[in-house]
Amino acid sequence: VTPIAPNDHVLLMDDRGRKYLIRAVDRVGKVKGIGVFNPYTLVDQHYGTTIKIGTKHFVVLHPSVVDKVEGIPRRAQIITPKDAAQIALQCDVNSGDLIVEGGMGSGALTIVLASLVKPDGRVISYEWRKDFARFAQQNLALASLEQWCEIKLGDITQGIDEVGVDAVILDLPNPWDVVETSFNALRVCGHFASYSPTIGQVEKTVAELRRRPFAEIKVLETLQREIVVGPRGTRPSSNMLGHTGYLTFARKIL
Amino acid sequence: VTPIAPNDHVLLMDDRGRKYLIRAVDRVGKVKGIGVFNPYTLVDQHYGTTIKIGTKHFVVLHPSVVDKVEGIPRRAQIITPKDAAQIALQCDVNSGDLIVEGGMGSGALTIVLASLVKPDGRVISYEWRKDFARFAQQNLALASLEQWCEIKLGDITQGIDEVGVDAVILDLPNPWDVVETSFNALRVCGHFASYSPTIGQVEKTVAELRRRPFAEIKVLETLQREIVVGPRGTRPSSNMLGHTGYLTFARKIL
Amino acid sequence: VTPIAPNDHVLLMDDRGRKYLIRAVDRVGKVKGIGVFNPYTLVDQHYGTTIKIGTKHFVVLHPSVVDKVEGIPRRAQIITPKDAAQIALQCDVNSGDLIVEGGMGSGALTIVLASLVKPDGRVISYEWRKDFARFAQQNLALASLEQWCEIKLGDITQGIDEVGVDAVILDLPNPWDVVETSFNALRVCGHFASYSPTIGQVEKTVAELRRRPFAEIKVLETLQREIVVGPRGTRPSSNMLGHTGYLTFARKIL
Amino acid sequence: VTPIAPNDHVLLMDDRGRKYLIRAVDRVGKVKGIGVFNPYTLVDQHYGTTIKIGTKHFVVLHPSVVDKVEGIPRRAQIITPKDAAQIALQCDVNSGDLIVEGGMGSGALTIVLASLVKPDGRVISYEWRKDFARFAQQNLALASLEQWCEIKLGDITQGIDEVGVDAVILDLPNPWDVVETSFNALRVCGHFASYSPTIGQVEKTVAELRRRPFAEIKVLETLQREIVVGPRGTRPSSNMLGHTGYLTFARKIL
Repeated sequence: VTPIAPNDHVLLMDDRGRKYLIRAVDRVGKVKGIGVFNPYTLVDQHYGTTIKIGTKHFVVLHPSVVDKVEGIPRRAQIITPKDAAQIALQCDVNSGDLIVEGGMGSGALTIVLASLVKPDGRVISYEWRKDFARFAQQNLALASLEQWCEIKLGDITQGIDEVGVDAVILDLPNPWDVVETSFNALRVCGHFASYSPTIGQVEKTVAELRRRPFAEIKVLETLQREIVVGPRGTRPSSNMLGHTGYLTFARKIL
Repeated sequence: VTPIAPNDHVLLMDDRGRKYLIRAVDRVGKVKGIGVFNPYTLVDQHYGTTIKIGTKHFVVLHPSVVDKVEGIPRRAQIITPKDAAQIALQCDVNSGDLIVEGGMGSGALTIVLASLVKPDGRVISYEWRKDFARFAQQNLALASLEQWCEIKLGDITQGIDEVGVDAVILDLPNPWDVVETSFNALRVCGHFASYSPTIGQVEKTVAELRRRPFAEIKVLETLQREIVVGPRGTRPSSNMLGHTGYLTFARKIL
Repeated sequence: VTPIAPNDHVLLMDDRGRKYLIRAVDRVGKVKGIGVFNPYTLVDQHYGTTIKIGTKHFVVLHPSVVDKVEGIPRRAQIITPKDAAQIALQCDVNSGDLIVEGGMGSGALTIVLASLVKPDGRVISYEWRKDFARFAQQNLALASLEQWCEIKLGDITQGIDEVGVDAVILDLPNPWDVVETSFNALRVCGHFASYSPTIGQVEKTVAELRRRPFAEIKVLETLQREIVVGPRGTRPSSNMLGHTGYLTFARKIL
Repeated sequence: VTPIAPNDHVLLMDDRGRKYLIRAVDRVGKVKGIGVFNPYTLVDQHYGTTIKIGTKHFVVLHPSVVDKVEGIPRRAQIITPKDAAQIALQCDVNSGDLIVEGGMGSGALTIVLASLVKPDGRVISYEWRKDFARFAQQNLALASLEQWCEIKLGDITQGIDEVGVDAVILDLPNPWDVVETSFNALRVCGHFASYSPTIGQVEKTVAELRRRPFAEIKVLETLQREIVVGPRGTRPSSNMLGHTGYLTFARKIL
């Protein structure tokens, strides 16, 4: 097992499970939640050890895909791992796939997708807001996944350049406007997925899907609770997200 | 797009969404839910078309990983896609990984894992019951994934041959008995996961994990509902699995 | 403690928890799930004992309100105890109240309401279908609650005769059509409640409520699981209703 | 409709739905969330109107039972309306009943029970902590329900004075220690209920219940979500309690 090398991306996790994705560069700075430190001091430490920075202890981890999703800076709400997991499996995202993403947010879902298409696949992400694109780009770099993702600045409702796409995955306010272009971009049997917080978005998207040759149109909602095994007994956590988004799926047929 | 070739594995889906995983071989036989037919008649048909067998219509699909899970014959309860998706993401199962599985059941989770480690990774599955091993083997073949999975007939509580393993994933009545051997088999920062229906299993497994250097021990329960967008309005389906299993996760540290 | 008297309504519960609401009359007949027997043989038995009818054993219970709801014959879906409980509490249904109900179904909710307004209150139930009214009437009699409920054959969307009503509670396909008349019937601070399976019904009803002086308009969904404490451990039941209906509440103000 | 009289208990609800239970007495004071004001200024106002105190607006409501539960001061976690509703219905709490409660907390459940047994029933509440008993007593007074509840300072595990009780309802760390005494206090067919946050408490209580003649032993968990009908569409609230407590029920037989 090799120790941390310069420029490695490292995950620091504190006592409460909060995660910080850090690059081992030689630059003293303040990191929110950690304090002032020079990430270069991580170099030559071993993954799996516990280190002390200031008065706090951190476990040093080789970042998993969930660490990356939970450790990146955020703007707005991200697609959570529970939903990203369903999207990835239902769309059958596999090594080598060509995936088109519409709407990047902070890049959380992009990280999951890029991680799965490695080493020969590719994620093409359409994002019309320059600031979001730049922010997501930085997060992908922090996650060491930028080489598997190409960001296209532009409005995906105006068209998708790619053809023979394995899956089109949308996190947009108006996914129904991308159903036609998604159909054209997808290979036969390719997967359509859309993440939407409201029922109205689901209904409009399903209506558009039904106007075209899509099979197995279905909408799923996933809830997840943590179970706490504590000194006073085992119980579900009272701390739970009551809702994130509905997932709409469909598959292109002829 | 190439049409169906002899020996292809094809997914037939009927009007109600029931799925049948079929191999296009020249052999007349009766398939439960389809009737008597010769799968060879599928050859040269195009994926994405709808065909008629007897009086029923079927969409012909190139089988996705979820199709495979839902289309294989079953013995006992399978790990459902909602849970398999969480396990795969939380354990960061990626192309090229070495995964050890304990307890195969019908091979449903094995299918998901094998699909993700392609083309250079490997799933090693320990199963002590010969009949389950043979049954799962047949299902892996039906899913065209047998080359990425090696089945070892034996009791995983007695030891794991592999070292440097990326993830150990268990579906056993007594996962706590495999915590020690899992720790030894895992690489540093590797993932432990266990699927268990009862709280008592969770408590025993967590207790064993806490006796060793494991970080981020957590237990998750996932619920999933389908949303029905119907002619009389949109509503969640009343048809829902109230419980499948709890998922216990941990990561090896030093 | 007095034993069972002639004409008592008795609850028989079998080994699997199935419930049968029976009147101790002298008439041999076949009861579905029990077989042929004469309910009069129950007379002089003690509540709380176990009896044998044919080859099956039954616990003899003094019927609770939930027994009545679960023990009546049904047409269509009933409002389940979990939802009836929320409605009753959120509408502050109390002894002495005047409650108006729109849509009786099998009378399940009526049973809960009548049971709570006793001995001096009253439930007025509007039902435009004669067959439903008669069926619900029979169930109320079986539940020994008919004296606290008056059934009005008619269309509640055309008007509510009563004024100063403590709560108006609806189980109708078009509750939004009763918002105006409910407002007029309610006392100040009185409660409006509507049970609806679909989101569209909720949206229309909320929109109507917002056009009038109603406070604390809120919509709740309740899910309930049974926890099984079994010989092989404790776990939630996989058998669960994924959805019944949304509950919309509001309170009349000036 | 009569306006607010001196000494009335009034519910003030602000724009965000926060509730304050206030007695209309002549005493200037500071109320958390409202500011400095004299509740006597409420006298002669009409229920259902909106008033201004300082810079904030409040709807003036005749307090419902849920208002009382949500408007009292709290120590520790209360039993929420969703759970109180299930307990009340499953235990068939009705006007005229004799109910024994073990463990009062802030008196939230006591308020619901007292409200239902009116005008001729009675709630006997055992609480061994003097400070909790006094606090709950004050909350019952604020809810105008003190005349239907008798608080007994003492340890319910040491015995229940009452006999022929309709229901025994427990919110204690060790409900299993009260099963024997509950059985003795209950009338035949009377109801036992226990609210417990952890699975271990449930298991121990169920084991004790099974050692005695109790029928229909069952454990329920209830989840509740608010649905938000907003300007940008309808969706479940992300703000949800993931867990409160498990409800264990049983009925005394012979």
